Amino acid sequence: MTAEFSVEKLYDDLVAHQLIVPVGVQGAYGRGAVFEEVVERFNNLVSEIAKNDGAITRLFPPLVNRKVIEKHGYLESFPHLCGSVFSFNGKELEAKQMAAKAAAGEPWAEHLHQTDLCLTPAICYPLYPTLAGKLPEGGALYSLLGWAYRQEPSPEPTRLQSFRMREFVRVGTAEQVVEWRDMWLQRGLDLLQSLGLDARSDVASDPFFGRGGKMMAINQKEQKLKFEVLVPVISAENPTACCSFNFHQNHFSSKWDIQTDTGATANTACLGFGLERIAIALFKTHGFDPIRWPTEVRRRLWP
Amino acid sequence: MTAEFSVEKLYDDLVAHQLIVPVGVQGAYGRGAVFEEVVERFNNLVSEIAKNDGAITRLFPPLVNRKVIEKHGYLESFPHLCGSVFSFNGKELEAKQMAAKAAAGEPWAEHLHQTDLCLTPAICYPLYPTLAGKLPEGGALYSLLGWAYRQEPSPEPTRLQSFRMREFVRVGTAEQVVEWRDMWLQRGLDLLQSLGLDARSDVASDPFFGRGGKMMAINQKEQKLKFEVLVPVISAENPTACCSFNFHQNHFSSKWDIQTDTGATANTACLGFGLERIAIALFKTHGFDPIRWPTEVRRRLWP
Repeated sequence: MTAEFSVEKLYDDLVAHQLIVPVGVQGAYGRGAVFEEVVERFNNLVSEIAKNDGAITRLFPPLVNRKVIEKHGYLESFPHLCGSVFSFNGKELEAKQMAAKAAAGEPWAEHLHQTDLCLTPAICYPLYPTLAGKLPEGGALYSLLGWAYRQEPSPEPTRLQSFRMREFVRVGTAEQVVEWRDMWLQRGLDLLQSLGLDARSDVASDPFFGRGGKMMAINQKEQKLKFEVLVPVISAENPTACCSFNFHQNHFSSKWDIQTDTGATANTACLGFGLERIAIALFKTHGFDPIRWPTEVRRRLWP
Repeated sequence: MTAEFSVEKLYDDLVAHQLIVPVGVQGAYGRGAVFEEVVERFNNLVSEIAKNDGAITRLFPPLVNRKVIEKHGYLESFPHLCGSVFSFNGKELEAKQMAAKAAAGEPWAEHLHQTDLCLTPAICYPLYPTLAGKLPEGGALYSLLGWAYRQEPSPEPTRLQSFRMREFVRVGTAEQVVEWRDMWLQRGLDLLQSLGLDARSDVASDPFFGRGGKMMAINQKEQKLKFEVLVPVISAENPTACCSFNFHQNHFSSKWDIQTDTGATANTACLGFGLERIAIALFKTHGFDPIRWPTEVRRRLWP
């Protein structure tokens, strides 16, 4: 790795400019005012591009019904990334014991029980159960924004345990959703390139777990079910996925009985912009003070 | 409870107007486009009111370092509300067992371990550790926005398990932070009344756990450490706290060694607007379609 692409230097620079704020756990940083301004401006730009698409806005909390995780098969594909909310239901005596242990730095996990909520691993997960039934003619389109959790502590500032995605979800026939996915793949590429980023698209696969996961990843690539728009941020050889485009076929719709207007099982696709990754790509590419960014980039974000 | 203040009818009305979207777990609803528009407009109004205060913006994820929960004594006061993130660190065979249990609807909690992250119970919690050391002269002021978790499933649409607060935190001498708190108590009251809400302020206490908690609540009230701005939403007799104003004295600053410019232990206070509660108070008071809200309310939110 050259000095130009040092993970440590990028992290240090982001901290020195108060763009991210250390919190003592990797990938759970606070964000500073300028970082948030860039995230907000980029998100506004996405909204501007999509403004005539007729998307329905839905916003879900960072938590999802645990049944959704169980039913989507998330634990078969990504057991290592999942997060489950545990809470306390005991009485006063046990509460005292638990608090005493926590204060003494001793383990207190045994006093907690698994709740009905998991951390949302993908922003579109909570949407699918709400779509059960018949779609209108032409299908439907949703706009989402939310916080995802993945258990992957890392020194890379682009690999967060808690991060935001701006997503769109298209539901309809296979033809409709693939056409829409292809349109957005071009839109995403154009958008990132218009911001002066060295972006390119490629077929991709998800980080499936274990040996069985390797076959799933090969399958996914062969069927071209996942594309990414990549930008060099922490490495020239391994550019960072900043947008992701996924064709789920009937994976979600069959589980929740989502039907097209003719009663056939629907197909779904989603795309997501990794808001923190795109902000960091901009800082890495153009410098840590947006006032000095190239005029054409500034004009695009602050129109 | 009169029909005018029926919890069930309010919930049904919010769902019927797609302001909230059921997800199968109480208090974890999705939010619709119009709901989000009202939340955003109200939050913008708060920013407008605070624009000359010189607050520093910080944004933290919905998760907080578990050490912060342990060190703040959260488990002594609110063990019943806490949320802790559990994840999976096992190998392939165990992952298969876990996934099989989850798919069969059997318990799978035993395969998870407690991570370094908890769910943020109060938006200002992650801020305090970042303030360790000496403050500038005059202290400091922070603006925050975030998602809080509290384990309290409830049929009341105003009592959520996952919700947003817009917060400000003042750090300085006791005199500085109390003066600031008093100023915002009046600002908060004026703001909600200007939106046509039947708001009043009152001294309040936190929902401390157990019998010991009752004494803590009485103490807190006697010392006037907590105030709320209340609006009737689900009951005339028990109005809903929509803003909360807390004087922490040196509770947080002593734990993290936050000092005034003279080296004395600082004092802290925070205030928070419950964004979902205020949106629901507006819908309950003015009706479920903002286009029909009183002109002066619309003009204030859509200037």
